[in-house]
Amino acid sequence: MTYGVAVRVDAGLVMLADTRTNAGMDNISRFQKLFTYEVPGERAIGILMSGNLSITQGVQSILSRAIEKCAGDPGVETILNCESMFRVAQLAGDAMASMQGKYRQTIEMQGAAADATIMVCGQRKGGKPRLYLLYSAGNFIEATADTPYFQIGEHKYGKPILDRVITPESSLEEAVKAVCVSMDSTMRSNLSVGMPLDLAIIERDACTFRARNRIEADDQRFAAISQSWAAALRNGFEDLPSFVD
Amino acid sequence: MTYGVAVRVDAGLVMLADTRTNAGMDNISRFQKLFTYEVPGERAIGILMSGNLSITQGVQSILSRAIEKCAGDPGVETILNCESMFRVAQLAGDAMASMQGKYRQTIEMQGAAADATIMVCGQRKGGKPRLYLLYSAGNFIEATADTPYFQIGEHKYGKPILDRVITPESSLEEAVKAVCVSMDSTMRSNLSVGMPLDLAIIERDACTFRARNRIEADDQRFAAISQSWAAALRNGFEDLPSFVD
Repeated sequence: MTYGVAVRVDAGLVMLADTRTNAGMDNISRFQKLFTYEVPGERAIGILMSGNLSITQGVQSILSRAIEKCAGDPGVETILNCESMFRVAQLAGDAMASMQGKYRQTIEMQGAAADATIMVCGQRKGGKPRLYLLYSAGNFIEATADTPYFQIGEHKYGKPILDRVITPESSLEEAVKAVCVSMDSTMRSNLSVGMPLDLAIIERDACTFRARNRIEADDQRFAAISQSWAAALRNGFEDLPSFVD
Repeated sequence: MTYGVAVRVDAGLVMLADTRTNAGMDNISRFQKLFTYEVPGERAIGILMSGNLSITQGVQSILSRAIEKCAGDPGVETILNCESMFRVAQLAGDAMASMQGKYRQTIEMQGAAADATIMVCGQRKGGKPRLYLLYSAGNFIEATADTPYFQIGEHKYGKPILDRVITPESSLEEAVKAVCVSMDSTMRSNLSVGMPLDLAIIERDACTFRARNRIEADDQRFAAISQSWAAALRNGFEDLPSFVD
């Protein structure tokens, strides 16, 4: 399984993903799920993938191959030169549709699931910060002020805290704390989501990554958030009014 | 959907369930899912049901009909006169197996799901407090000190808080608060779980219900817990150390 979350607030964009994949309980591996692409000062793009790994790696290959081809032939359209973030989402969606068209039927004949979900977020110069959620058909939806975050994979454990604290007015720091707490809750309750984590932060209008961190299991700052949150929950729980007479 | 949770701590047993059922988003009804049976001072039993409603209502009917028959024929074995809580779980499991055997195939031919899950908890005089989780086949598992609670239905949103605070040493008051917070988080994040709630509390060795409450949407004590918890999360979140530089 996977847990990935992306937030679009007025101040910018934040993405966080784990790196654990499993084909059954006894076949656990580590694969990066969050990929970043950047033309510093012009555009910064984060792509976060979950679902069938052969499908999502294929999507990533298609996008990367176009970028390589573009070095020899500048006429090739890529996520790094296309006209808008909407078009970036379309290119990723087209790559998804192409992979699903090629493999879905045969994957399902083997009794496996071909479903995949992709989040695309970023900003290009002259545009606005955008966050899209792409489905297996290649279609997609965009985050709005009413729904400023999307999740993929094992999303339920970490949803309550996001529902409580994330608004478009949240600062980037708050958004980062919220996704860390959301991931921490998920990892505590579900074995299939695990360290290390990949975090990416894009400040509004910078069109450059403010941070691209790999958070290892012994990361001190993540541990500090995790411990502080655990203590706050424990204390808050102890202070709850009694329900029974 | 449903959310139900039952906790077995050293001090006794606590069960909490919502009352919302839905067949699709536009067909939402209210059905009681937590049923209590009592021979005061001799045994107190709570049964909490989720899944296909025709199956779970059938299970309930079978158990109740046996109790009615027993009035005329004391030789009939029922959950109120059988020798142990283990036997109570077996009787409920047998009723489940009977209902599944009669209807599962035809339900699935209609494209619907026949799955159901039942929690049985209680204590009889001379026995210990027991908590069982029954599956569609009628087989069941028992809660232990390592896993002192079970959930049914929409369980993920409300699991993190239980993982953090419930231990066998938790008091009944703490267990009640924990299931209330767990339910509150679930209702905030999932429309298919809703008020009113049914709460039942069995104090160890009393073999009688300490409380059987219906918690309506305007319940002041539940609102106080919900608000206090929201404030604790908000304050705890604000006090988190910063992750970014």
